[in-house]
Amino acid sequence: MATETAGPTLAEIEAARRGLEGVARVTPVYGSETFSGLIGREVLLKAENLQRTGSFKIRGAVTRIATLSDEERETGVVAASAGNHGQAVAWAAREAGIPARIYVPQDAPMSKVEACRNYAAVTEMVGATFEEALSAARTYANETGATFVHPYEDEIVIAGQGTIGLELAEQVPNAGTVLIPVGGGGLAAGIARALHEVKPGVRMVGVEAGRDGYTIADGIAVKHPGELTSRILDDLLDDMITVSDEEISEAIVLLLERSKLVVEGAGAVGVAALLAGRAGGSGPAVAVLSGGNIDPTMLISVMRHGLTAGGRYLVVRTHLGDRPGELIKLLSLVAAERGNVISVEHHREGMDIPVSETEVELTLVTRDEDHCLQLLAAMTERGYKVERLK
Amino acid sequence: MATETAGPTLAEIEAARRGLEGVARVTPVYGSETFSGLIGREVLLKAENLQRTGSFKIRGAVTRIATLSDEERETGVVAASAGNHGQAVAWAAREAGIPARIYVPQDAPMSKVEACRNYAAVTEMVGATFEEALSAARTYANETGATFVHPYEDEIVIAGQGTIGLELAEQVPNAGTVLIPVGGGGLAAGIARALHEVKPGVRMVGVEAGRDGYTIADGIAVKHPGELTSRILDDLLDDMITVSDEEISEAIVLLLERSKLVVEGAGAVGVAALLAGRAGGSGPAVAVLSGGNIDPTMLISVMRHGLTAGGRYLVVRTHLGDRPGELIKLLSLVAAERGNVISVEHHREGMDIPVSETEVELTLVTRDEDHCLQLLAAMTERGYKVERLK
Repeated sequence: MATETAGPTLAEIEAARRGLEGVARVTPVYGSETFSGLIGREVLLKAENLQRTGSFKIRGAVTRIATLSDEERETGVVAASAGNHGQAVAWAAREAGIPARIYVPQDAPMSKVEACRNYAAVTEMVGATFEEALSAARTYANETGATFVHPYEDEIVIAGQGTIGLELAEQVPNAGTVLIPVGGGGLAAGIARALHEVKPGVRMVGVEAGRDGYTIADGIAVKHPGELTSRILDDLLDDMITVSDEEISEAIVLLLERSKLVVEGAGAVGVAALLAGRAGGSGPAVAVLSGGNIDPTMLISVMRHGLTAGGRYLVVRTHLGDRPGELIKLLSLVAAERGNVISVEHHREGMDIPVSETEVELTLVTRDEDHCLQLLAAMTERGYKVERLK
Repeated sequence: MATETAGPTLAEIEAARRGLEGVARVTPVYGSETFSGLIGREVLLKAENLQRTGSFKIRGAVTRIATLSDEERETGVVAASAGNHGQAVAWAAREAGIPARIYVPQDAPMSKVEACRNYAAVTEMVGATFEEALSAARTYANETGATFVHPYEDEIVIAGQGTIGLELAEQVPNAGTVLIPVGGGGLAAGIARALHEVKPGVRMVGVEAGRDGYTIADGIAVKHPGELTSRILDDLLDDMITVSDEEISEAIVLLLERSKLVVEGAGAVGVAALLAGRAGGSGPAVAVLSGGNIDPTMLISVMRHGLTAGGRYLVVRTHLGDRPGELIKLLSLVAAERGNVISVEHHREGMDIPVSETEVELTLVTRDEDHCLQLLAAMTERGYKVERLK
């Protein structure tokens, strides 16, 4: 006997979809030859990073705000978020013409705070942690009667996110496996509810970012599925897997370089799982790219890391005689081998530098790992003692 | 009396479009709230960077290859290109099941050479300049009878690129101005021919990258419109303008950060022209984002430059007493003001450093220009003599 499933019904998700018409974008699905080739399986990307405000979150926020009474609309909404949820609530409230107040921790990237303000929400930077911002938002809701919009423990919000599942069923009718990022679990719960109803055979995999310390998937890493979303996910997902920061970084760089899409850490976990060979199942695999709001300074770090790992940078240290012209000789050699110099660091002091020598550290742009090895060999051949740092 | 216009006819462009069905993507058009707000005019982006192979070039290449005779198909095609055209010809030849040979200069980024090879084309790295690669390709064509595919001086290729104009007319029926990158001029000639026929009122602006020395718009900067394309452009464009590297960089960073799209320099010139206020005309403005194949190392440089200009990095130099604990004091102050340290450089030697002091250079991630000023003020207040480097 079937037990009753938690979460929104198909009818509620379909109603949410009607409410989103002309408001949210029906984001495109792209087949990726690069990823299909790398993974040995047809790979499709649901580009929800191209959604308005840069993430799927407006689907839930718009759907939730549409249910408010006239009185509730007048008092407005409040949310706590350092990221996508805050921007989505601010945007959805503006679209609906109602007031919004967003509490963000003081350390939130200015780009996200600015985004909320651009959407005309009153944006308060409060406290050092997310919990303090959350507490301020709850207090404000209690004191003013404003409606607190939870990012995922809310059936209506989940119904909004579930509209992605309905789109996927139409856009990729032959999908074998769908990979969905899991943070608070609202996105995965919604998609799983929808696909369970309209495409019951499809394999559904939740993907979490590793929670050991620092993670680049800041959109999902601080969160755990809630009580409601956990019940839905436990019931409906075929598998739940975890990917590492290293795997996520590689996915971000490949999405950027090959698919021309900016995807945040949390949005890249599905591709990371595919690249790591942990998706399981068979048939075409769809990765939901949930958002693209990655801080540009973080993106630069991730790219540099990914390029170094791929042999596109070479950092090499060597010693030169401390005479005029020695550096020119070295740089001429590098140029002849078509290494492109980014930086030269000269050290004249140090425990292990003979007094007649200087140490020099070169950072070069290289074509690939073979090119790195070719440069190192050419330097060694000319008598340089080289130490590869990266 | 109307003179006969050069270039493909509408019927030829429509035929090209039928030939591209199911092969090329009908790329999406996105309204951009950010750009509309910045520019004070509705801005739409034709995301041709999401085209297969990362640029519009496959439209022309596929169309050209479709016209080959059985005998010509057997002998195959040859092209010279360090970039998008080479990848497009390689890809289109593979799709058509015919051999392709691409000549690229030796300095071409390995990512582009690899892309051609991945599309199963024989890819030869020849000569230090594009002209040498071109000469090798022509020689090969003469010796073997392979069909040389010109990137723009070819009416059929131009008809292929013109299919973007037909899509735009349907996707943005109320377009007032269309901005099109101009390098060799094939893209602009094709779009202009199409729009001239199906939307005769629309203002069409060609945008070139400044040709003074180095440019980041490598996809268009080395080229000039050809004899055929010049005739079409002179006849049909309402205006031709030029943007600088600085303006292109700003556009690339904004497209990346706000629109989540990776766009190469040549592809960003239309947005750059809009941001610079030089587009002219009225009504909704559409920028054709022609491609997304920017070298990642170049992209990192562009992003760092853009972020520094926007106050998102602060590089500051100061002096410390050469005693234990002085650096910790400085870093604690920075942390209290919520600056995020990327690098610390210590210099103990130098002409203008007193012997009892060391010089320290900090690179910090900051929120915005106000945050930079706040950090500098806090350091000055505590008695540090600061010099802002960036």
